[in-house]
Amino acid sequence: MLYPFGPYYISRAVEVFYSTKLTLAVVNLRPVAHHHVLVFPRRPVARFADLVEAEVADLWLSAQRIGSRIEAHGRKRGVSGLQFVIQDGVGSGQTVPHVHVHIVPRTPGDFTPNDAIYGALEKRGFHADETERPDRSRDEMREERDELAALFPEAEYQVP
Amino acid sequence: MLYPFGPYYISRAVEVFYSTKLTLAVVNLRPVAHHHVLVFPRRPVARFADLVEAEVADLWLSAQRIGSRIEAHGRKRGVSGLQFVIQDGVGSGQTVPHVHVHIVPRTPGDFTPNDAIYGALEKRGFHADETERPDRSRDEMREERDELAALFPEAEYQVP
Repeated sequence: MLYPFGPYYISRAVEVFYSTKLTLAVVNLRPVAHHHVLVFPRRPVARFADLVEAEVADLWLSAQRIGSRIEAHGRKRGVSGLQFVIQDGVGSGQTVPHVHVHIVPRTPGDFTPNDAIYGALEKRGFHADETERPDRSRDEMREERDELAALFPEAEYQVP
Repeated sequence: MLYPFGPYYISRAVEVFYSTKLTLAVVNLRPVAHHHVLVFPRRPVARFADLVEAEVADLWLSAQRIGSRIEAHGRKRGVSGLQFVIQDGVGSGQTVPHVHVHIVPRTPGDFTPNDAIYGALEKRGFHADETERPDRSRDEMREERDELAALFPEAEYQVP
C-alpha cells in the first residue's frame, strides 16, 4: 500500500506506523533526532489554512498522542521534551507541498546550541539538496517503523 | 481583565486580541517578527500532552484561523508563509510552563540564514535572560493588539 506525501509515495511496510481515517504518521528518510517523525493529513493539501476542521483536529490529536507515546518510549534514553513544528508556505522553509507536523524528541545536549536543531530541520527531511547525510536504508526505516507501530496497538490506529 | 499565562498575567487591554471559551491569543512582549503572536489554552497546563481533546482542537483551529488572517493582513508587506512552533518541555527550550503555539509570519529575507528565526525564538519571548532587545512599551503592544483584534470582528472571538 502506498500513500501520497506531496510528490512522494510512502509505503506502509517501510514508513507508515500510525493511521486514522484522516491522518498518517511516518518515520523519516533523514531524521534530525532519534524518532523524529512526520504527521500529516491523508489529503494532500499544501497549506495549513486549507485543512477542514476535522482534519486540523485529527492531525493535532494524532500529533499529541504520537508525541506523548514516543517521549514515554524514549524516557529511559533521556528524552525529556518535544518540538512540534509546521513550516507553512515556501517563505517559511516548507519544502514538501503537503502540510506536515515535525515531531522531534529532545534529549539534553542533543544539539549545541539548543536551537541548532532548527537548522538541522531545514537542511534535512525530504530536501533535494541534502548532502550532509545520506538517505537511510529501507531496512533501517522498516525496523523503526515496526518499533513505533508497536506503540499503537489499538485497532483504530492500525495502518491498512 | 487579566488572564494567567504561566506565572504571568496578561491584560485584555494591552495584549489579548482573540479569545474563545478555551483559547486566547496575545501579542508578544519581544516579537521576533512583525505580528509574531502566541496562542494558548486558557487553562494553565505545562505540557501539550496534558490538554484534553476539546482544548487541542480549539487551540489549533484558533491557530489556523489566526495565522490565515494575519498572513492575509500582511500580504501587502510581503508576508508569504507562517511558522507554527510548540516548544514542549524544558528539554525542548520551553521557558513558560504554559503550553503555547508561536505563530511567526515570514517575509522573504527576514532572517538570514532562513533558520536564524529559531535562534531568535529561543532568545526572546518571555525569557528572563533577554538582553539583546528591550521589552516593548505597553502603548506599542496596545496598538498592535487593537490592529489584530480588528481582524476578528465576530462576536465569538471577542475578548471579555
